[in-house]
Amino acid sequence: MQTVKLAIAGFGTVGTGLARILEENEDVILARCGKKFEITSVLVRDVNKKRDFLPGPEVKFTADPDEFTSSPDVDIVVELMGGTTVAKEIVIKALKAGKHVVTANKHLLAEHGIELFDIAAQNKVGLYYESSVAGGIPIIQSIKESLAGNRIKSIVGILNGTANYILSEMSTNGLEFDTALAQAKELGYAEADPTFDIEGIDAAHKVCVLTRIAYGKDYPLSELPIEGITRVEGQDIRFAREFGYRVKLIGAVQDVGGKLEAGVFPALVKYTLLLARVGGNYNAVRVEGNAVGPAFFHGQGAGSLPTGSAVLADIMALAKTDTPDNTGFCNAPIEKANILPPELATSEYYFRFTVQDKAGVMASLSKCLAEHNISIAQAVQKGNPDEKDIPVVFTTHKASTKDVHAAIEEIDSMPFITKPTMSMRILKG
Amino acid sequence: MQTVKLAIAGFGTVGTGLARILEENEDVILARCGKKFEITSVLVRDVNKKRDFLPGPEVKFTADPDEFTSSPDVDIVVELMGGTTVAKEIVIKALKAGKHVVTANKHLLAEHGIELFDIAAQNKVGLYYESSVAGGIPIIQSIKESLAGNRIKSIVGILNGTANYILSEMSTNGLEFDTALAQAKELGYAEADPTFDIEGIDAAHKVCVLTRIAYGKDYPLSELPIEGITRVEGQDIRFAREFGYRVKLIGAVQDVGGKLEAGVFPALVKYTLLLARVGGNYNAVRVEGNAVGPAFFHGQGAGSLPTGSAVLADIMALAKTDTPDNTGFCNAPIEKANILPPELATSEYYFRFTVQDKAGVMASLSKCLAEHNISIAQAVQKGNPDEKDIPVVFTTHKASTKDVHAAIEEIDSMPFITKPTMSMRILKG
Repeated sequence: MQTVKLAIAGFGTVGTGLARILEENEDVILARCGKKFEITSVLVRDVNKKRDFLPGPEVKFTADPDEFTSSPDVDIVVELMGGTTVAKEIVIKALKAGKHVVTANKHLLAEHGIELFDIAAQNKVGLYYESSVAGGIPIIQSIKESLAGNRIKSIVGILNGTANYILSEMSTNGLEFDTALAQAKELGYAEADPTFDIEGIDAAHKVCVLTRIAYGKDYPLSELPIEGITRVEGQDIRFAREFGYRVKLIGAVQDVGGKLEAGVFPALVKYTLLLARVGGNYNAVRVEGNAVGPAFFHGQGAGSLPTGSAVLADIMALAKTDTPDNTGFCNAPIEKANILPPELATSEYYFRFTVQDKAGVMASLSKCLAEHNISIAQAVQKGNPDEKDIPVVFTTHKASTKDVHAAIEEIDSMPFITKPTMSMRILKG
Repeated sequence: MQTVKLAIAGFGTVGTGLARILEENEDVILARCGKKFEITSVLVRDVNKKRDFLPGPEVKFTADPDEFTSSPDVDIVVELMGGTTVAKEIVIKALKAGKHVVTANKHLLAEHGIELFDIAAQNKVGLYYESSVAGGIPIIQSIKESLAGNRIKSIVGILNGTANYILSEMSTNGLEFDTALAQAKELGYAEADPTFDIEGIDAAHKVCVLTRIAYGKDYPLSELPIEGITRVEGQDIRFAREFGYRVKLIGAVQDVGGKLEAGVFPALVKYTLLLARVGGNYNAVRVEGNAVGPAFFHGQGAGSLPTGSAVLADIMALAKTDTPDNTGFCNAPIEKANILPPELATSEYYFRFTVQDKAGVMASLSKCLAEHNISIAQAVQKGNPDEKDIPVVFTTHKASTKDVHAAIEEIDSMPFITKPTMSMRILKG
């Protein structure tokens, strides 16, 4: 029986989870894989830090990346540090030394994936990353293998548990954004600096990874339209509910006539869709293939054991294969995708205008929208003339991003507008 | 570039779907797999039958199984005939001839899986069956590889689209069973003889397949408790809704202290669960692993292209590997599972007693349940004393199957009972 030796860079939440699973499920892993897995070394910032879980006295802890990567006695390097500096160096060194790499680092893959997959291909080693998107949900493997015979029409995901938790709390308990964020921090669902989560950047990294596995092409992070949830107000969520929608932070990519449209944005999701039912810190991904139709995956998008489960799946897969398939496509290097200019994307929209109630407001708004080819589906005006900052809410039929931007720019300069207009896309199916 | 040659036994819905996908998605398949796939021969009952789709003039159609299996020029045999006679012979011949086999045939696998996997192992060839459970949903691959590091706690699935369609129509449109079944037949969702679907037998086949991939053990079909949906009435569905549940046909297996409890049964599913939201002819599977937590998969459980998509995934996987993994476990042959005697299973229950309204009815029912250790959670009695056949509905706390059977037997012999009692399990989480 062969023993597969693992070196783990980073021993935080996920690293600890992986070590725990390797210990607790040792018999199942052996029965399935026919191999034993052993952690030989662990790279940490501080070797003296107190830890909840230790993987056994024979495991060597080091804070020196050079010492860590120079260990010859390793089959698979597991990168769980995050970031794009030391992590990148470690991954490249490992690949060049002919070792397989498993990483949970979507940030690294989104920014440097082309380079890394190219190095992996040159060295004929695996670079696996199931855990980088949607935690324990097997979305990478499913797209790469189970849906491999499909032309992927679209992927729509709730890819960030922190943002989903905040929006769910705003929806269920009527909280405003700041309160929900504070609560998420308190419960450990949001980091001290939550920028990546609430500004949609983490979800954007995942969209880049998903786009590559689904289409074999690169949608550069720098060109991806990204909008977070910081502008979503309690009233938007209430209006959405009134119209039969839930507000979710969506990461999506779709094939529009051979061009890829992708982005991260808050959206109104029709309450009948399973995506609208994804609560708390869960993640979900809906993949539509031209053969399989819509396939929906739901589960824990983060956390020690769920993410550890995905890391372990990659480790076990690499231990079993002689021909790792990193990108799901034969061609290397990965080319840039044929991108649909974001301004040409179309969607139904939700608009919340904030106005001073005067005669002619509704007429001016409607006229401007019509002039920009935006057709109104529903309209709601609440409040009374004595109030300031009255919301006027419209939902629209399909309109282009370009027309929407132009209309909002024009409307926001109108004299009765008291606050910048809020707009979100609407997803119905 | 290598061409992989396929022989297809059975060219009905799924075979046609596969051929269509191979043609329509040829470029994607080549880009992902680096190989071309070619159908060389097709086994059908009647070579002269008119067909909607033909895979090209070079494909040889034959009605002779011997001619079909003797063709040397084949890499993978795809069995899509169904049944357990000719299909079994073809699969065994192919495996013994050193050819990989892909099958959608849950019936064959449930009844003869041990033998077939053993033959496959002896001949070191693949026997893949993603399409045998839940159509296009990649549940086999996910359990086998993506969740491979998990101890599977439970699998709960909606595994039969026909039964789910009937129950959904009963629920949404207030139909009675017979009307909904007739409608399903008319729309092609149910076959002329729907026994396998409505009696839970098809779902039972799938439970056997899932149990094997999740636990590496065999739960013999002959020992599996199976209950269909023919006794579910419109009023059961209405009572269920009143209590906050939807009625679904469930196929399930779980690890209860090292023993496997499995079965197929109609159940009340809490409306907040995603499983309760699975409508029409969709399928869904919820797998709970000790690391990943709950993972939920939803999609088309049948149909030409979705099932074809799963068949193709297996074909592509086999074309890429030199070491096929059929069962997800190293040991062969597969042993019989350590089975929890079904009488010892416990669950919360729904009971609908049909009574003639007399003084003391409620007291007699409650007393009998108490004497069998069954504790009542909720009770509803509707109708008035002038009516015959008044339903009295109870939900219970956890009770054993044994106690439930004994109590119902005793109650059904009470003089005021006018019809046999209906009982269903309740799933809350």
